Amino acid sequence: MGILNYPNGYKQKNNLLKKTSTTNFGKRGMNFEEAINQSNAYYLTHNMCVIHKKPTPIQIVKVDYPKRSMAKISEAYFKQASTTDYNGVYKGKYLDFEAKETRQKTSFPFRNFHKHQLLHMEQALTHGGIVFTLLFFSSLNRVFYYPAENLLQQVHTANRKSLKLSKIEQEGIEITVKIAPTIPYLEAVDQFLQQHNSLI
Amino acid sequence: MGILNYPNGYKQKNNLLKKTSTTNFGKRGMNFEEAINQSNAYYLTHNMCVIHKKPTPIQIVKVDYPKRSMAKISEAYFKQASTTDYNGVYKGKYLDFEAKETRQKTSFPFRNFHKHQLLHMEQALTHGGIVFTLLFFSSLNRVFYYPAENLLQQVHTANRKSLKLSKIEQEGIEITVKIAPTIPYLEAVDQFLQQHNSLI
Repeated sequence: MGILNYPNGYKQKNNLLKKTSTTNFGKRGMNFEEAINQSNAYYLTHNMCVIHKKPTPIQIVKVDYPKRSMAKISEAYFKQASTTDYNGVYKGKYLDFEAKETRQKTSFPFRNFHKHQLLHMEQALTHGGIVFTLLFFSSLNRVFYYPAENLLQQVHTANRKSLKLSKIEQEGIEITVKIAPTIPYLEAVDQFLQQHNSLI
Repeated sequence: MGILNYPNGYKQKNNLLKKTSTTNFGKRGMNFEEAINQSNAYYLTHNMCVIHKKPTPIQIVKVDYPKRSMAKISEAYFKQASTTDYNGVYKGKYLDFEAKETRQKTSFPFRNFHKHQLLHMEQALTHGGIVFTLLFFSSLNRVFYYPAENLLQQVHTANRKSLKLSKIEQEGIEITVKIAPTIPYLEAVDQFLQQHNSLI
């Protein structure tokens, strides 16, 4: 895992610090990531699944001890994550997903997905995980569950640099935003499993 | 999740930076955590499961840009993790575990397990995950797979502050250290699943 450089690292990680600068999700004063975290917290509290966001990977270089009682990290760098951001367990099954957003209105750029994330999705699928992406079209205020199977196929075979919205509408499952959980993605997971004749 | 203070945070996190200061595992120049990471890497490479260690959670306070091309974190603090350290997928099932070590020779102190980790284990079990701990007795150079079910029962009911080695020998599965993977914990998982009449 290498240390991130500008422009990707800069832009991406800067958002973590200045959340208000990202797209306001559903006009509720939270961005897409916060909406997912809220949904995960809701699901956890209501005993429906256990999904957590993984911490951002950091390379720690120097730690000071301004007081004996506290460790202060005074030099560290962002690292490239080697997996997707979210995983956990639902009905005994392994769930794994990545959340991405775009301001585009007709397609979702593949460049949003990093190589290592795609590789991880492929590996998790191989071992029977339920792997997907939550795609947020911020200009349209629409959210989709899009299976990793389809994403990988598109990335590997499509002769384009983005995923058409029409394709996502056709192969994905649109998620209607609610009060709580804000993004009820488990409903889409259930629908996906039904469609694929799972034993759940 | 609060910021960690001395002594737990200091000692625990300091180990992350000075890995050589921790117990040498199996006299191979790696500590217990490194041995587990090596095992995970082996399993991933050999397409046997997808298990990753979660990054250490950090609260970032200040980021500088010494060059336009690089983001440097200049103030950050360790946070308490809200889950166990390791999770992933094996044969479609959700695997979740925590690795702990002790220098004690006859019992494993419960204080090694934080409240939030025990709660997370309970939650993951509820949803059908395979949840366990890898316990390393460094003075004895012995490693055990110990199911979270048993650990939680012991923590909640035992009238002691530690888990007897004899109990671990009786209810756990001893893992014989190998060259690669160093800690073949999947063998213990298989054995556990067989004992519990799982469908795998």
